[in-house]
Amino acid sequence: MSLTIGVDVGGTKVAAGVVDVHGKVIEKLKRTTPAARPDDTADVISEVVLELLDRYDVTAVGIGAAGFVDETRSTVLFAPNLAWRDEPVKKRVEERIGRKVIVENDANAAAWAETRMGAARGQQDVMLITVGTGIGAGVVLDGRLYRGRWGSAGEPGHYRVVPDGRLCGCGNRGCWEQYASGNALVAEARELARRSPSAAVRLLQLGGGSPDGIDGPAVTHAAREGDAGALSCFEIVGGWLGHGLADLTAILDPGCFVIGGGVSEAGEMLLGPARAVYESSVTGRTYRHLAEIRQAELGPDAGLIGAADLARQG
Amino acid sequence: MSLTIGVDVGGTKVAAGVVDVHGKVIEKLKRTTPAARPDDTADVISEVVLELLDRYDVTAVGIGAAGFVDETRSTVLFAPNLAWRDEPVKKRVEERIGRKVIVENDANAAAWAETRMGAARGQQDVMLITVGTGIGAGVVLDGRLYRGRWGSAGEPGHYRVVPDGRLCGCGNRGCWEQYASGNALVAEARELARRSPSAAVRLLQLGGGSPDGIDGPAVTHAAREGDAGALSCFEIVGGWLGHGLADLTAILDPGCFVIGGGVSEAGEMLLGPARAVYESSVTGRTYRHLAEIRQAELGPDAGLIGAADLARQG
Repeated sequence: MSLTIGVDVGGTKVAAGVVDVHGKVIEKLKRTTPAARPDDTADVISEVVLELLDRYDVTAVGIGAAGFVDETRSTVLFAPNLAWRDEPVKKRVEERIGRKVIVENDANAAAWAETRMGAARGQQDVMLITVGTGIGAGVVLDGRLYRGRWGSAGEPGHYRVVPDGRLCGCGNRGCWEQYASGNALVAEARELARRSPSAAVRLLQLGGGSPDGIDGPAVTHAAREGDAGALSCFEIVGGWLGHGLADLTAILDPGCFVIGGGVSEAGEMLLGPARAVYESSVTGRTYRHLAEIRQAELGPDAGLIGAADLARQG
Repeated sequence: MSLTIGVDVGGTKVAAGVVDVHGKVIEKLKRTTPAARPDDTADVISEVVLELLDRYDVTAVGIGAAGFVDETRSTVLFAPNLAWRDEPVKKRVEERIGRKVIVENDANAAAWAETRMGAARGQQDVMLITVGTGIGAGVVLDGRLYRGRWGSAGEPGHYRVVPDGRLCGCGNRGCWEQYASGNALVAEARELARRSPSAAVRLLQLGGGSPDGIDGPAVTHAAREGDAGALSCFEIVGGWLGHGLADLTAILDPGCFVIGGGVSEAGEMLLGPARAVYESSVTGRTYRHLAEIRQAELGPDAGLIGAADLARQG
């Protein structure tokens, strides 16, 4: 049975896994990412892949990286959390491991995995939205991964939802990911604790008494207990998520949105408000079919599984 | 040589043309649209097509209609300016003319025509934005017309650019077409004339002395003369256009935007400000290629030509 290796390269760690044709991860290894020097990262990727190649008969290697990847799936043009700028990742790793390598944006790879083997199995038109620190996304259209003219499609986290809105890491203001991400969830909770402490008693307790001590897991924990303050933060952030999905429906009319990333583990606390706002605000809602909004199934391995499957397809 | 017929069905008229494989319109006929009764519209389409079939050997007929068309390209689900609701247009017209018919959204058909034979010849990833009374759009991705899961892709005119913004015909507030359309241009000019008449002397003159007398052609006329007030209206509307193109680039990364519709005839007065805002605001602009922004080439026949070509492809 044909095996491939998928590698997920994030800002802090490299994870590599041997994956079978059904998307099952047979063995997985992890290393920390040496972010400072580009060559070091390619070295770490190559080492971990070579270790797996020692033990498995593997036909190809796919690398999912958090950054802009060029249209030939060879070069990382820019990776905000790595030292890569115009980095020929495909070439560098191929030289070291002697196998064919493809490079893909990590969220694109995850979108492919969720469409082929995860929450959107059987669907042809899918958008994956990963709600983590920020927003990542991947787009599958007519059953194929859509990469854009120059490989940079699927960055809706940086379309503008509020003119002159919150400052974003990309340098613009009002980007969607400033309103519908884990960072936004924490910002809402801290603001609640600062301005209306009586509505945030439990949140403050979990934050060690200080608004700045409140983190994402604390908000999720309090919301799971039924805390009204924490739930109101999910309402706000979930609402912004649903609003964005309505905008994406106007533009692309997908059949299914898959919501992944750390914040999506809150499940219906996030997806409930997202669905409500989506259904009440999508344009032409009386005359069109609405997309399904589903929780991702493959978890943090999605990028690795998708990269491995894309490598198999060549 | 294989000929097909393209039909453009708008709110006020039906235009049908015999089109050759190069997109050349050999003969064109027009009729007014009887908007009140769905059957009458199908009758008018059929009559004008039958008249052309009498004189030309035609293999198929494509109908471009201003409305949501279902994913089988048969039924118009909703057409804001026609009486059609869940109207089986394909079936009704095929029964009357005895030829194969496909139905397509008019802006989708125009996007196809501009990509195959117009301003974006040779490109694979193209968005057509028609700036008329409102905003229409069509999306060509990887060289194919993208219709969405249920045929309703390509409605970016109704993504939200301003929370709680201007009321839109679709029932929502803050839709892009309320800021970057012909209606928006006229609204800007009238507001200028109302609030700052000394900056709108020429506009008021062309409007017969009243702000409400100012129409789109008047604004374009004054701007062509170099009138500062009229040019400022194009700056504002062109800026909103460019901002939206930046958002669409974040999501889809197309290679080329084609700007069509009546307002696009103002050329650089609209496209200059659009390009300036686009280039200064697209996310990751330092690390990505930017899309070209081109004026449409095929004019008001684009929909008809595209519908004819789509019918040829079957």
